[in-house]
Amino acid sequence: MIYLDNAATTRVFDSAAIATQKAMLEDFYNPNATYKSAVKANEKLEKSRKNIADAVGAFPDEIIFTSCATESNNTVFDCGIKNQKGNIVITAGEHSSVYECAMRLKGRGRDVRIAPLTPSGIVNHEKLLSLVDDNTALVSIIHVSNETGAVNPIQQIVASIRKKNARTLIHCDGVQAVLKLEQRISELGVDYYSASAHKIGAPKGIGFLYVRRGLNIAPYIIGGGQEHGLRSGTQNTPYISAFEQAVNEFTIIRDRANATQIRNGLCDYFTSCGYNIVGSAENSGYITCVCIPGIKAEILQNMVHDRGVIIGKGSACSGAKRGNRVLAAIGLSQTEIEGCIRISTFNNTRDEVMSAAHIINETVKKIRSGNVK
Amino acid sequence: MIYLDNAATTRVFDSAAIATQKAMLEDFYNPNATYKSAVKANEKLEKSRKNIADAVGAFPDEIIFTSCATESNNTVFDCGIKNQKGNIVITAGEHSSVYECAMRLKGRGRDVRIAPLTPSGIVNHEKLLSLVDDNTALVSIIHVSNETGAVNPIQQIVASIRKKNARTLIHCDGVQAVLKLEQRISELGVDYYSASAHKIGAPKGIGFLYVRRGLNIAPYIIGGGQEHGLRSGTQNTPYISAFEQAVNEFTIIRDRANATQIRNGLCDYFTSCGYNIVGSAENSGYITCVCIPGIKAEILQNMVHDRGVIIGKGSACSGAKRGNRVLAAIGLSQTEIEGCIRISTFNNTRDEVMSAAHIINETVKKIRSGNVK
Repeated sequence: MIYLDNAATTRVFDSAAIATQKAMLEDFYNPNATYKSAVKANEKLEKSRKNIADAVGAFPDEIIFTSCATESNNTVFDCGIKNQKGNIVITAGEHSSVYECAMRLKGRGRDVRIAPLTPSGIVNHEKLLSLVDDNTALVSIIHVSNETGAVNPIQQIVASIRKKNARTLIHCDGVQAVLKLEQRISELGVDYYSASAHKIGAPKGIGFLYVRRGLNIAPYIIGGGQEHGLRSGTQNTPYISAFEQAVNEFTIIRDRANATQIRNGLCDYFTSCGYNIVGSAENSGYITCVCIPGIKAEILQNMVHDRGVIIGKGSACSGAKRGNRVLAAIGLSQTEIEGCIRISTFNNTRDEVMSAAHIINETVKKIRSGNVK
Repeated sequence: MIYLDNAATTRVFDSAAIATQKAMLEDFYNPNATYKSAVKANEKLEKSRKNIADAVGAFPDEIIFTSCATESNNTVFDCGIKNQKGNIVITAGEHSSVYECAMRLKGRGRDVRIAPLTPSGIVNHEKLLSLVDDNTALVSIIHVSNETGAVNPIQQIVASIRKKNARTLIHCDGVQAVLKLEQRISELGVDYYSASAHKIGAPKGIGFLYVRRGLNIAPYIIGGGQEHGLRSGTQNTPYISAFEQAVNEFTIIRDRANATQIRNGLCDYFTSCGYNIVGSAENSGYITCVCIPGIKAEILQNMVHDRGVIIGKGSACSGAKRGNRVLAAIGLSQTEIEGCIRISTFNNTRDEVMSAAHIINETVKKIRSGNVK
């Protein structure tokens, strides 16, 4: 199988799987207990936190482990907004876990403003700014679009927001950006940053919320006061170890220049096939959204699956029934959206990606010729 | 090492570790994606849900997977209360994740009533009932005390609550009870039931919330609409597989009569040593709280740790600084509480438990004789 849906599906790194196994079978102490082995387990947990924080560009005390980025995003929208009456600005390109949180607040009477996207999939910077005013409580901007790979220039956007309103809080959903972009979290100037570990070779079920030092956030999940009071529930120590290992391994093997080359190769090839690339040359090297005229992506997806290639079709989190809100916000028609596939690479070679691209093109020809069983 | 703090620390079953490994390295598909392997992953997930539901006495659609019982409890207190103005009744024996949720609501102006405990550690049934009135929105009762092993007779309590107020919702925190007591969830008559998998041989980081069929609960963590819209975030499929395996294995190996015999043996021995058992003969066979006059549990805990025995000292979730709210509610003095150890067995033999008991007693004698380095 050639996996080109790594935004949704990633084989866990061997090193991360071994770390999970070791923590389950050997270091299974509860880091919150008081006996010596538990104290050691806690030291190990804090060491993992430090290593992960170092790698992503944060202080250890800025990292709260959560069960996933969806939980991190919920935490920000429920507990991370101080100005209880202020408006909230999000982009039209947000992941459903941010979008739904904003809609929940809107349902409770909050003024929620949605900044439109440009045709290349990033937020329209000027229009976003026009929505921010003195009364803005939170701005939430996705770093890399999970649908298209479009990269929002967070640093510049943050700087211009701060000029307009120095007090507003700024959140960034960094799920598809962490370690894949060069920028470190501390350089972005944001207050909150969300990440999920399963996008970089760790298992599904662990993530973090970055909370800038000096900011106080109330905990979303309360109880025993774990995570220094900021997220209760016994820590998932096996997956935290796995997260640390995945961060180490991904930091070593990642090759952003190569990822960009692979994407460029894909874009050139698919353009020569007459397909449309959604996005621009500035996109993340790891995600490519391709719009294939006259094709139903779901049929293509299943046919190439039978030939050993797994591709995506919109975010697994966007839900089949709801259409694709983000691609529609870019200006694609319903017919165009139905023909969009998402190719997300992770640890793939150029050769396998190009061979998969050929299989995709052959299959498209087959579908178009009506030669489908 | 002899592990007698299994309420906090449990080695994961080999079968559960293997299931985790397999899901991380082979079946790593996102069950929410649309291609064939993902559809299979979803079928596997639903099969796990059904097997777990069967084992605990629930319908599959009554089980929502969460990251832990703490999250389940938070969900109930935030999203599971419909009568927005009604009062809430909890017991003084609740786990911190229920207690803190109730206190958060109290801080927001809700009438929260706390039913006292009897000296044996169960809730005072009559006094609990006296707190329930026509305006009660939720009653939350812990099934088995994580501090003492005291077992609340949920079925009887539920029946009498329903007589007084047929509309109130009833939640039960079943973390220490699931599969360890004979009763099945459906027999209890409750509306909500919380469980964590790491108390029965699965890893830390997975649990469920049971929501009685026919009841609608709003999701706490929203986004992509996973778990049939009731808990968003990509499912932790490796741990759900592990949970299923742990349920299977624990169902086979559990021997409640033997657990009770082990507890009785412990109680007899410690009573003969002059220690006081907190609780009654009706306690869970899996948890024993022992009050040793004149001893500081923390010192004892560290000394027996050096001799290969791990015992607990109050819940790891109760936080060292806050004292022990539950033991205080039973009527123990601060000095008595400082001398309380918690022995929780899981997969232990009678021989190892008794040999650990002897080590504990020898160590107590050593401490009392002042013969401590």
